[in-house]
Amino acid sequence: MPDNPTATKYTWDAMPVEQVTDQLSRRLITGDKMMLAHVYLKKGTIVPLHQHHNEQITYILEGALRFWIGSEDAEPIVVGVGEVLHIPGNVWHKAEAIEDTLDVDIFSPPRQDWLDKSDDYLRLK
Amino acid sequence: MPDNPTATKYTWDAMPVEQVTDQLSRRLITGDKMMLAHVYLKKGTIVPLHQHHNEQITYILEGALRFWIGSEDAEPIVVGVGEVLHIPGNVWHKAEAIEDTLDVDIFSPPRQDWLDKSDDYLRLK
Repeated sequence: MPDNPTATKYTWDAMPVEQVTDQLSRRLITGDKMMLAHVYLKKGTIVPLHQHHNEQITYILEGALRFWIGSEDAEPIVVGVGEVLHIPGNVWHKAEAIEDTLDVDIFSPPRQDWLDKSDDYLRLK
Repeated sequence: MPDNPTATKYTWDAMPVEQVTDQLSRRLITGDKMMLAHVYLKKGTIVPLHQHHNEQITYILEGALRFWIGSEDAEPIVVGVGEVLHIPGNVWHKAEAIEDTLDVDIFSPPRQDWLDKSDDYLRLK
């Protein structure tokens, strides 16, 4: 038997929104081995170059993000509606919201730094 | 350094569709620790009671699924657009498409039975 033998239903619109900065907010669904997030970025938001051991899948539902992978000098990759970016663990990446964006981020394992709010790279400007 | 130090971009519409049955088809994006799937179910599709060790997150983008968790006698749970169902590993579940549905399924680890097509529970009627 798993620790939690039951399924849990979530409704995004009914979940509290964490306002991380003026420009970026999010909702989190945290499982055992993975985390599903709604990340809301206003046009112009910069997510500074950072990395984490967590594997990341970014699925864009609204808007578009421009990514730089490996370094800030890399050729940018634009990920728009209906597109997905897979970022292996430990890979450096930076992002910019080209439009107001709803980004579905999936991580494995869950982002402990998002849960305990030690994600300073997002909070400092 | 990870095995694959680069990010990979996917466009759902450009990806091949695997037609699993007349009623169910899918597209898969497979990472290291997780898999992201688009599952397309026609109204009336039944996914028979089954379980797997993989943790599952089901996010409905179009349509709706009715789930039975634990057994076929359980009280059904309807998951519609903008809703998410978290199913821990090893939990039995059955589903029925109440409408034509686009279901985003996320698994950790990736579903090896989906990759090697040994997922007979989906294929046998």
